[in-house]
Amino acid sequence: MNTSISSVAHIRTLLESLPGEDAVATAAWAVREPQLTKPAGSLGRLEDLGRWLSAWQGRHPPRLDRVCARVFAGNHGVAALGVSAFPPEVTAQMVANFQHGGAAINQLCQTFGTELQVISLELDRPTADFTQGPAMGEGEFAAAFQAGMAAVPDDCDLLCVGEMGIGNTTPAAAIPCALYGGEAGFWTGRGTGIDNDGLDRKTQVVAAGVARHQGLTGLDILRCLGGRELAAMAGAVLAARLKRVPVLLDGYVCTAAVAPLAAENPKALDHCVVAHASAEPGHRRLMERLNKQPLFDLGLRLGEASGAALAVGVVRAALACHTGMATFAEAGVSDS
Amino acid sequence: MNTSISSVAHIRTLLESLPGEDAVATAAWAVREPQLTKPAGSLGRLEDLGRWLSAWQGRHPPRLDRVCARVFAGNHGVAALGVSAFPPEVTAQMVANFQHGGAAINQLCQTFGTELQVISLELDRPTADFTQGPAMGEGEFAAAFQAGMAAVPDDCDLLCVGEMGIGNTTPAAAIPCALYGGEAGFWTGRGTGIDNDGLDRKTQVVAAGVARHQGLTGLDILRCLGGRELAAMAGAVLAARLKRVPVLLDGYVCTAAVAPLAAENPKALDHCVVAHASAEPGHRRLMERLNKQPLFDLGLRLGEASGAALAVGVVRAALACHTGMATFAEAGVSDS
Repeated sequence: MNTSISSVAHIRTLLESLPGEDAVATAAWAVREPQLTKPAGSLGRLEDLGRWLSAWQGRHPPRLDRVCARVFAGNHGVAALGVSAFPPEVTAQMVANFQHGGAAINQLCQTFGTELQVISLELDRPTADFTQGPAMGEGEFAAAFQAGMAAVPDDCDLLCVGEMGIGNTTPAAAIPCALYGGEAGFWTGRGTGIDNDGLDRKTQVVAAGVARHQGLTGLDILRCLGGRELAAMAGAVLAARLKRVPVLLDGYVCTAAVAPLAAENPKALDHCVVAHASAEPGHRRLMERLNKQPLFDLGLRLGEASGAALAVGVVRAALACHTGMATFAEAGVSDS
Repeated sequence: MNTSISSVAHIRTLLESLPGEDAVATAAWAVREPQLTKPAGSLGRLEDLGRWLSAWQGRHPPRLDRVCARVFAGNHGVAALGVSAFPPEVTAQMVANFQHGGAAINQLCQTFGTELQVISLELDRPTADFTQGPAMGEGEFAAAFQAGMAAVPDDCDLLCVGEMGIGNTTPAAAIPCALYGGEAGFWTGRGTGIDNDGLDRKTQVVAAGVARHQGLTGLDILRCLGGRELAAMAGAVLAARLKRVPVLLDGYVCTAAVAPLAAENPKALDHCVVAHASAEPGHRRLMERLNKQPLFDLGLRLGEASGAALAVGVVRAALACHTGMATFAEAGVSDS
């Protein structure tokens, strides 16, 4: 069921008719949950996660047999403007590190039984400098979006989405600035750890990019101010919806990449949970706009889907409680 | 190295000379961590957890070969005063549920490779009603404290501490109220889900208990206003310190049980991380007094060591990153 994406208009058509929560599976969850041997509501968000898996997988009990992390890598024209503490060649170096198992995401995936795939998107051909013109043309954008869609297996039970791309917290700031307004400085952070001068430079780049691309909406903002790995993440999240796969979003870059989907259709991210609040200050501001509550806030600011992969443990725990606990009747426990 | 506890005075002696952080292991952590292929500090609290394991295990790299959860169960004289939504026989019923693998804690321990042991403390002999006199005599208190100490294996690498005891959020409120002052209502919450009338009754019980036992400090507060499972948790946390075992504390009852140790020696809980912020409002207030930041806040309010057991996943992830990641040199990644 992989769709060939031809244009922004084509994606907009897909976004018009999205599947919703499965009422039968959700009802089955709601019958079982209050019977389990605990005070009602006492597992807090673990209970919500069980409901969420049921609703979006469309089955009860839900399963976590195949959990997939997909990390998309891209390079950015704006990286030449001195917006990052690291040189652009680190994108490819880190992709090699992923492939050899040496990065944080490898350890996190291994800890929680998650299958990792890294998708490099034309690393030797950075996107255009968005202060001068659109980061991507229509064809480039559609290809990157489709690469993301194609990365989601039909039988995936839970998807973690993340990225690697030196310079990509600059598009991550520009996208919400264009979508929601506000000063560039409100959305711009230190990324991998840029100094004060660098932060000033980066903020000016964000402001110049947003000024250059006035009057756009949703997916056109993603095309003109984003990057290939951001387009791919948006594609993966849309494909997951169409395939009934719940999604764990990662940090600032990931959430910024998918915010344009919500601008096109306010229900487009209903199957997504934001795993964590990034240390990048714009992330929390962006989550407020999207009405999303992160699962945890551990000061992570790495990207690579690391926060999403860490949250897989919490989701596995939630499923284990919902499916494995005894009911009051089974255990002979008085229920009040 | 199990110590036979004879009295409160004896415990105070043990609290006078506690081992501190291991400087050699901590230094070894600090040499390795900045070499790993990520921007400095970008794994946030996962980095801190690696340091914490090294410092308190006293070895680098630290290990998580044997992770233990110890759940202590007790019954309470105050339960007869209508302070809980559940009848007191549920304590024993839930212990049976733990033994048959049907509770939330069983699923959480299984998910993250944690060994579970449940220790029942004279369930058929509730502590005395603390509004009328001390909850426990010196001998009863010492026996419960020692049962907690004896439950910590010498070769344990990480300890999760928790409890089961219908009515025990009442002593959990009374202890910080006696230690730190403030109105009883500031420390008293709904526990398993008591209604408004019950909450009023419970608050009056807390106030009456604190008024009945004026002028006490630290461990005497724990003896007079606590319960056997609370004394045992304090004993387990002290034994863990003496055996160089880092501890994950659970929610309100667990944190209240060990707060008297900090009142005796402000460094007594330095080897402990509070796993989560309970939905019980007093927990956050108590953590502020203890200068502890929870790892996450997922609205849990179950007890049973459930929050601590959930945090084991996060600690395993932290260790996997610290030990398994490649260095910049190994991976050939430019480090800025």
